Amino acid sequence: MDDTTKIAITRRLASAAGHIKGIERMVQDDTYCIDVIKQIQAVQAALNKVSTMMLDNHLRTCVTTAIQGDNPLEREQMLEEVVNVFEVTGKLSL
Amino acid sequence: MDDTTKIAITRRLASAAGHIKGIERMVQDDTYCIDVIKQIQAVQAALNKVSTMMLDNHLRTCVTTAIQGDNPLEREQMLEEVVNVFEVTGKLSL
Amino acid sequence: MDDTTKIAITRRLASAAGHIKGIERMVQDDTYCIDVIKQIQAVQAALNKVSTMMLDNHLRTCVTTAIQGDNPLEREQMLEEVVNVFEVTGKLSL
Amino acid sequence: MDDTTKIAITRRLASAAGHIKGIERMVQDDTYCIDVIKQIQAVQAALNKVSTMMLDNHLRTCVTTAIQGDNPLEREQMLEEVVNVFEVTGKLSL
Repeated sequence: MDDTTKIAITRRLASAAGHIKGIERMVQDDTYCIDVIKQIQAVQAALNKVSTMMLDNHLRTCVTTAIQGDNPLEREQMLEEVVNVFEVTGKLSL
Repeated sequence: MDDTTKIAITRRLASAAGHIKGIERMVQDDTYCIDVIKQIQAVQAALNKVSTMMLDNHLRTCVTTAIQGDNPLEREQMLEEVVNVFEVTGKLSL
Repeated sequence: MDDTTKIAITRRLASAAGHIKGIERMVQDDTYCIDVIKQIQAVQAALNKVSTMMLDNHLRTCVTTAIQGDNPLEREQMLEEVVNVFEVTGKLSL
Repeated sequence: MDDTTKIAITRRLASAAGHIKGIERMVQDDTYCIDVIKQIQAVQAALNKVSTMMLDNHLRTCVTTAIQGDNPLEREQMLEEVVNVFEVTGKLSL
């Protein structure tokens, strides 16, 4: 991962952690439940953005290298991992 | 897409459409709301599985071809599309 | 459920089922995978809207009756069901 | 919110914030992207559990009070808020 991306991702993660600390205080101060839930949803959206940036980086580096390389097992493993990460979206236990 | 995958995906889609027709009847028969919602969630999980199968196929065909090819613009477009599809997960309008 | 709501929900479900039949044809016609995935995501958004309408109706009818009633067990069951449905919706997103 | 629930929720939030600080270090140490994404998804699942606990508490306190009360406007507002929070959770998943 290049340094610019690493710094950008680290900042977003630090911001999300700080956001959660703020939500902790909201809970301790008896903030209205719905407002707390909305802040949690905002953190989840921010974390989604970080995951997307990580995936973007992964596709441009490891996955590209594996697909251009001549190790079919490695290529297969890379693609499976990406698909699995995508599928977690649908991991539902009804 | 190979024929086996196409048939498997088509069957799952037909099953999801049939499931929704069944939910329509549940609503007309005044089925308990929570039971209707659970059936809708089951269809959404089934559709997630279809999306995952489509993405799996896409990575193994178009994306692999583009990454192994020598058109950097096409490669870039492919990766962006995959990232965008992943990001829709986080498309949240608070 | 009043008739207006029932008709509105039934129409949305019929539309979602029709949308999925259209996606089946897209797959059979070898439509570009990413375009298929986007259509599936559109159906999921439509189904999410239907679930929300069902929950809205449920809260205004059964849940309101149970909370105003004097059967604590029934009230407890109603609230648990709503919480469970909410939790599963969040799991669908993870 | 009773103290037991408040302590339980605060602990889960503190744990999620700590988890994110750990993910920050993973990024700085160049941990494999897929492993980072999986950890982010674990935090999101933990946050989803906190939202569910908050909603559970909200339904048993404010919403119950409003529905048993005689202010129809307040009751209406409460139900709308719950429905909106549900709808956003579904959008997070699409």
